[in-house]
Amino acid sequence: MTGGLDQSVVTLLEFAGIIAFAASGSLLAVRKDFDLIGVLALGTVTALGGGFVRDLVIADGTPAAFSDPWLLPTALAAAVVSAAAHRPLARWHRAMLVFDALGLGLFCVAGASVSADAGLGALASVLVGVVTATGGGVLRDTLSGDAPQIFRVDSTLYAVPAAIGSTVTVTLHGTGSSSAAAALATAAMVITLRLVALRLGWRAPSPARVGQTSS
Amino acid sequence: MTGGLDQSVVTLLEFAGIIAFAASGSLLAVRKDFDLIGVLALGTVTALGGGFVRDLVIADGTPAAFSDPWLLPTALAAAVVSAAAHRPLARWHRAMLVFDALGLGLFCVAGASVSADAGLGALASVLVGVVTATGGGVLRDTLSGDAPQIFRVDSTLYAVPAAIGSTVTVTLHGTGSSSAAAALATAAMVITLRLVALRLGWRAPSPARVGQTSS
Amino acid sequence: MTGGLDQSVVTLLEFAGIIAFAASGSLLAVRKDFDLIGVLALGTVTALGGGFVRDLVIADGTPAAFSDPWLLPTALAAAVVSAAAHRPLARWHRAMLVFDALGLGLFCVAGASVSADAGLGALASVLVGVVTATGGGVLRDTLSGDAPQIFRVDSTLYAVPAAIGSTVTVTLHGTGSSSAAAALATAAMVITLRLVALRLGWRAPSPARVGQTSS
Repeated sequence: MTGGLDQSVVTLLEFAGIIAFAASGSLLAVRKDFDLIGVLALGTVTALGGGFVRDLVIADGTPAAFSDPWLLPTALAAAVVSAAAHRPLARWHRAMLVFDALGLGLFCVAGASVSADAGLGALASVLVGVVTATGGGVLRDTLSGDAPQIFRVDSTLYAVPAAIGSTVTVTLHGTGSSSAAAALATAAMVITLRLVALRLGWRAPSPARVGQTSS
Repeated sequence: MTGGLDQSVVTLLEFAGIIAFAASGSLLAVRKDFDLIGVLALGTVTALGGGFVRDLVIADGTPAAFSDPWLLPTALAAAVVSAAAHRPLARWHRAMLVFDALGLGLFCVAGASVSADAGLGALASVLVGVVTATGGGVLRDTLSGDAPQIFRVDSTLYAVPAAIGSTVTVTLHGTGSSSAAAALATAAMVITLRLVALRLGWRAPSPARVGQTSS
Repeated sequence: MTGGLDQSVVTLLEFAGIIAFAASGSLLAVRKDFDLIGVLALGTVTALGGGFVRDLVIADGTPAAFSDPWLLPTALAAAVVSAAAHRPLARWHRAMLVFDALGLGLFCVAGASVSADAGLGALASVLVGVVTATGGGVLRDTLSGDAPQIFRVDSTLYAVPAAIGSTVTVTLHGTGSSSAAAALATAAMVITLRLVALRLGWRAPSPARVGQTSS
């Protein structure tokens, strides 16, 4: 566990991320006019879907979403509370985007850290960090009948901050300088980067349009 | 295995559910004007998809859909026969909905029972029961290009009967009073509840509309 | 390993298939006007998605997509290069379809061979071969917001050549007559069959229309 992140901090990151993502999924379900089942399913899938895929990759028994006694009740409760409070939450116009940014930053650090601890290679650990952070949202959008928001050219940077945060996490792990403070600082950097990208409209390049410009 | 369900009854439930769900997926593929590959794929995914996810959760080797010598041939055969007989089946206007209800009741009991036997917690076992019962249909709808039917506000109760049946199954397991008769009675209750909900138009509450009404 | 395919040939098949499928996914992402993240995601999912599902079925630890040090960089690089070169590639009007046929032939042989080596039954191994070959494309289409191309009645034979190639592979395995040459010949047959089906417009039967004709 040398170089690993303190377990209590990983746990803290995971729970904060789960609440944030469950709220994001639940509020989208309300906006889509889904029923209570849709709220519970979208909230749970958004919150636990990225970690479920991470655990399938690590292949170490029952995924935490089902073996941990707290993850699932937390996600379900957060989905229900968010749906019940969707009206006040909607008044904070950017609530869903901020929730989403929180989950993004917290999950990429937790995902990359867990994967590096499990012995995956550097690039694979970075990808698992990105998938842990963005996979729930991709499943959320796919189950809502939309193409994933993060693929669209009009989307602001989302996976890129997660990739940066995962890379920092894996680099810290590789150099044996992981710490709770560094993990929280990395997550905060990702969250800030995401919110700045949102505010300033930073976008990933579009290969189709780069092609047009360059020829 | 104390408190567990007799294995032959689990097997019976699984095969009946697989035939029912394969027919449901196959008939939807015909209605969507998919080709034979679409029929086989949608029939198989609907029939075996929920159990495949269940086995990923339990993480005990190759999922039964691929290791059991009978599940896959049964699903493929049921899909082909249903597609070939889609014209007489269509004359029974509600055939697909009844097939679906059968699969729902049988799969939630089998899924919750297997999960509880595998040592998962009560809430996780209930969720696995619901996912086993509804996951195939969610994959079926997603692969058909639709948002899952069970999330829509105009859908009648579907996951709720499965959740009730899973809860009863897990409770019986916890109190050591599982039996083949109890399992069949639970499945029958879920099927009845589903068909009554369908007939009387019972729906899950819509958080968006609850919000509107209450403010 | 008696009856198994020489490992270096399996590796060669897998890498060629990965480059072909990553290009196919990446070029679709460009056509859909997705951004760089969409290109990377669709390229990677198309290239590695079928093998990821295969490895979930075989359930032997971390899927190769994440444990192998070369698969993931290869897929990412092929996706980026294809997107950067999408303009010259588009001038070869059928480039994407040929890439796709290459991946189809190479992956069904590799997938069926690995599954038979892992001890799965014949029918299950054939299905895993088909899923390895077509699963990436199904995920690609689903993530793009389309129903899978291979289900549509206007699609030319795609899964059928993969099923034939998988069946040949499993039969050779069962009779102990697998060889590198036989594997390459089988893949070449699948690729040829796919390209001929594409050229001549061969289609799988449509159950809905078969029903119309016969009554």
